[in-house]
Amino acid sequence: MQYTFASRMGKTPRSFIREILKVTERPEVISFAGGLPNPALFPVERLAESARAVITGEGSAALQYATTEGYLPLREWIAERYKIRLGMDVSPDEILITNGSQQCLDLIGKVFIDPGSRVAIERPGYLGAIQAFSLYEPEFMNVPLTSEGPDPTVLNSVLSEGNPRIFYGVPNSQNPSGITWSLENRCRVAKIIQRSETILVEDDAYGELRFCGDQMPAMRSFLPDKTVMTGSFSKIIAPGMRMGWVCAPYEIMEQIVTAKQGTDLHSNILSQRIISRFLADYSIDEHIRAITDAYAHQRDCMLAAINEHFPKEVTCTSPDGGMFLWATLPDGFSSTELFNRALAENVAILPGVPFYTDGGGESTMRLNFSNASDERIWEGIARLGSVLHQYMQTGRIAENN
Amino acid sequence: MQYTFASRMGKTPRSFIREILKVTERPEVISFAGGLPNPALFPVERLAESARAVITGEGSAALQYATTEGYLPLREWIAERYKIRLGMDVSPDEILITNGSQQCLDLIGKVFIDPGSRVAIERPGYLGAIQAFSLYEPEFMNVPLTSEGPDPTVLNSVLSEGNPRIFYGVPNSQNPSGITWSLENRCRVAKIIQRSETILVEDDAYGELRFCGDQMPAMRSFLPDKTVMTGSFSKIIAPGMRMGWVCAPYEIMEQIVTAKQGTDLHSNILSQRIISRFLADYSIDEHIRAITDAYAHQRDCMLAAINEHFPKEVTCTSPDGGMFLWATLPDGFSSTELFNRALAENVAILPGVPFYTDGGGESTMRLNFSNASDERIWEGIARLGSVLHQYMQTGRIAENN
Repeated sequence: MQYTFASRMGKTPRSFIREILKVTERPEVISFAGGLPNPALFPVERLAESARAVITGEGSAALQYATTEGYLPLREWIAERYKIRLGMDVSPDEILITNGSQQCLDLIGKVFIDPGSRVAIERPGYLGAIQAFSLYEPEFMNVPLTSEGPDPTVLNSVLSEGNPRIFYGVPNSQNPSGITWSLENRCRVAKIIQRSETILVEDDAYGELRFCGDQMPAMRSFLPDKTVMTGSFSKIIAPGMRMGWVCAPYEIMEQIVTAKQGTDLHSNILSQRIISRFLADYSIDEHIRAITDAYAHQRDCMLAAINEHFPKEVTCTSPDGGMFLWATLPDGFSSTELFNRALAENVAILPGVPFYTDGGGESTMRLNFSNASDERIWEGIARLGSVLHQYMQTGRIAENN
Repeated sequence: MQYTFASRMGKTPRSFIREILKVTERPEVISFAGGLPNPALFPVERLAESARAVITGEGSAALQYATTEGYLPLREWIAERYKIRLGMDVSPDEILITNGSQQCLDLIGKVFIDPGSRVAIERPGYLGAIQAFSLYEPEFMNVPLTSEGPDPTVLNSVLSEGNPRIFYGVPNSQNPSGITWSLENRCRVAKIIQRSETILVEDDAYGELRFCGDQMPAMRSFLPDKTVMTGSFSKIIAPGMRMGWVCAPYEIMEQIVTAKQGTDLHSNILSQRIISRFLADYSIDEHIRAITDAYAHQRDCMLAAINEHFPKEVTCTSPDGGMFLWATLPDGFSSTELFNRALAENVAILPGVPFYTDGGGESTMRLNFSNASDERIWEGIARLGSVLHQYMQTGRIAENN
């Protein structure tokens, strides 16, 4: 049987990560390829208690159809948290609860992207965003990431010459690079966007997972009417309930509500109420501190192991938050080749190529440190180090091909 | 601030129902406008027990990221249910868990509809489908519903002349009309689709809510490689968790998986496991019988009240399942005008206009019987009857305008 699919389906990259994860899920593989939070830190008992309280205490209201925007007490909590953490004044009416922050990207794509619309994105950029936006058939424009954030000179010319509908970025502990935009970079980027017609999509999935350094102002603080901000409970509570949110100016929110309604009516109200109850009954700050302490330790462990085992020519970021390191091989070496060689030794890395919409990135790779014990980090990085030494002695891609 | 939105947003109807429901939620209003299941029938205690068992027994696995396709034991249950209820052989690999069956429609739109693609739909058609598909900018083609199902002559010419990508229908207890396609009509429709290049989207949200009459074969039984079928736990357990599924041939499923991943990665795994546990521990047949007994009684109550209070010129369907009656005023009378007059008496109906993609339907309305007590049904229909008598005496629209 021959099927005719929409043309967008031919333009959406198959998820390389998805394919990789199937291979790397074998228990004998030490995997740094995925992006899972550490499940040992999930507040299982407290969520069980919150769920019990909600279902028995709130009964059928927790199980009936609900509003598209989401559970008001939860949206109020998010608005209050923005005030406390970032000093931002946000109304609960500017917040809508989504199925994880991935759905924010789908809704933003629906609302802003026509086939052929230009979308600017960091290079390397978050793969989930590339996939979500690709379904709306944009033309991607790339803004290289420096260690300080998006390159302001390139951003300026991309925005003034290309006039993209949106610029998507992850200012805090970016996925995949781990880079946090500096304060100076934020100010420059804000000025460039302010002069343009482009909307900033500020993905803040990792903002609460900061190990060290000052709290940075949100880009939305500089650009309140030009920023759509996304957030997530996946990294600070648990991802399985798929609870995130989008924060947008009223006029944009009105369109997002229409899109959300056509897409799935509303997000799971039982889980919204469980999260809301959990936040009311327990200290989220205490819980986040436990997570950041653990992840900072795991990052340090991985950096120490890399320092001991990797060839000195391999460079690596030292992120101040989040769940990932970003490593770069010397020119001419391929992380895809490394992936294959490492997998033979039962270690998995994530090659960087899928994070580039315009090709390139062959020498880069992402290493996840949040989901492995100290022992597995040391053992995995040691194995990877010896694969790297061997690979770099046997020659560059150019010589192989 | 002037924003530029995607052109699809201008083509998506604002939800009239959504606007109406805001007005009709006042407690003094007896509303037949919504589409809520009866919350008194939600298995609250049992779901509380299932949730407790899942979170404490399965722990972090119930809270971590999960597969895009959904929880395998739940997909196996759905496949087995298709076998028992409809005699269909379906593999769990042909099933993907969605955020309610509304999300099936979004994913089907993503996979099949390019801007300008033709989409055939029953007339009147399900509003949620019209909204979901409209976001993909199709050209709608209408197939009038007779009391037996879609008009085969029109369907034949629409499919042969228009060659639509999909034909969307609700064969069991359709929303809004309450009509169930007859066996003879199903056979004729299947033959017409078999000869065409069109994919049937068979929305089976109400198939389990059948009060009387023989079980009809699924359209998918006739057209296994040309049907995408959707299902829902909203009507047989509870809607708030947003749990539905889509069943499609492998080659189509592969595209749906790609679309689902870009859209929101996967559906809420905690709720999937709660539903799966509930289905394993309790008799769903017994629970469904309690619902259908109650709804059949509520339908009978509404029909009896209509028979007593409505002018004889108003006709009405007598559905064999589902949650809705469909009533038609004599030519020249407007259900929108009736809506306004009835609301002044604190009764709400749903005018039929939004269910027509090509205009028309002014004289039709939908009445929900699943979410009101006998007393409120009698009282509401009595008030509506006197508004109707008064309206029909004061004259037709043509005379008013």
